[in-house]
Amino acid sequence: MYIPKHFEITDKDEIFSFIKENAFGQLISHVDGQLFSSHIPFLANDDNSSLICHIAKQNPQWKDIEGQEILITFQGPHDYISPSWYKAPGVPTWNYQSVHIYGKAKLITDSEKIKTIIEDLTDIYESSSKKPWVPEYKGSLLNVIVGIEIQITNIQCKYKLSQNRSAVDQKQVIKELKIKGSTKLAQAMKNGL
Amino acid sequence: MYIPKHFEITDKDEIFSFIKENAFGQLISHVDGQLFSSHIPFLANDDNSSLICHIAKQNPQWKDIEGQEILITFQGPHDYISPSWYKAPGVPTWNYQSVHIYGKAKLITDSEKIKTIIEDLTDIYESSSKKPWVPEYKGSLLNVIVGIEIQITNIQCKYKLSQNRSAVDQKQVIKELKIKGSTKLAQAMKNGL
Repeated sequence: MYIPKHFEITDKDEIFSFIKENAFGQLISHVDGQLFSSHIPFLANDDNSSLICHIAKQNPQWKDIEGQEILITFQGPHDYISPSWYKAPGVPTWNYQSVHIYGKAKLITDSEKIKTIIEDLTDIYESSSKKPWVPEYKGSLLNVIVGIEIQITNIQCKYKLSQNRSAVDQKQVIKELKIKGSTKLAQAMKNGL
Repeated sequence: MYIPKHFEITDKDEIFSFIKENAFGQLISHVDGQLFSSHIPFLANDDNSSLICHIAKQNPQWKDIEGQEILITFQGPHDYISPSWYKAPGVPTWNYQSVHIYGKAKLITDSEKIKTIIEDLTDIYESSSKKPWVPEYKGSLLNVIVGIEIQITNIQCKYKLSQNRSAVDQKQVIKELKIKGSTKLAQAMKNGL
């Protein structure tokens, strides 16, 4: 992704914390030579060296993914930024946060390992539930999905949050985003101030 | 994208209205043979036969995009759906809406045409502003960006909104999403009921 210096984030803790918060990304690879994307949640492994996901076997994307150099994109809150909000002159733009992960894909077909992926994802997403769902499903379910582990080879992170504008303009953008109801994006900008 | 029948949307008016509402998509192509994605707003032309966007010339993506078969992905609101919300048994999933557009890319380098793209985008995004920004910028700006028109060859649309669950479960999911603050996703589900 094209990242001007003032929008580039290199802090790995920040990047993986962003991925955790915005885990519903896109798995982009080739199927029969054509671009293909699936929208799914991802999970980093213990040392953040790989990302793990699973898809339905009916989704053709897994069939020739083994060994492919693939791209996973994550996106956070985003919104249009009007130059009418600035004190100094400017042009229209869009503020957003995104992480792009490149890596080599490896299939996970072992039932026990797929079970672990489901349990790990469940732990994350059910943790805030009043009565967390406890994995309880037919073992045959494990036969209709396939896991994919992506060994990370390159990490790109861009926070495009008006860092190229004056402090006055940044504060006004935050204020206007709050009025618009873009509270998450406003908060991301505030965190960066 | 993998689309089970019950999640497939084919109504073109609905699809282009979704794109208009969720115009900040991803332009996915190859740069030097590697997958590459940019997060930018798109605009459909008058007869919805092509999508138009512009990127900075400093972004390398335009350099070899001419003639490429590229993919544009749009995503709407999304959230985790807990099986603990269902009356009948189920497994964890994610609800979301997405449109994937395949097409052939063509560069737009003519200043007047680039100016029109900027004006059209401005018309859309400044229309709700109290004091809409009137395009006023140095002509040299038109030399640092490049337009891209994507002639549409294939449209895929997936609304994964619990259509495979009972009416009782769907209503409960909408209720729980509202509690979580996922109001846009809840509304999308409600629209489909």
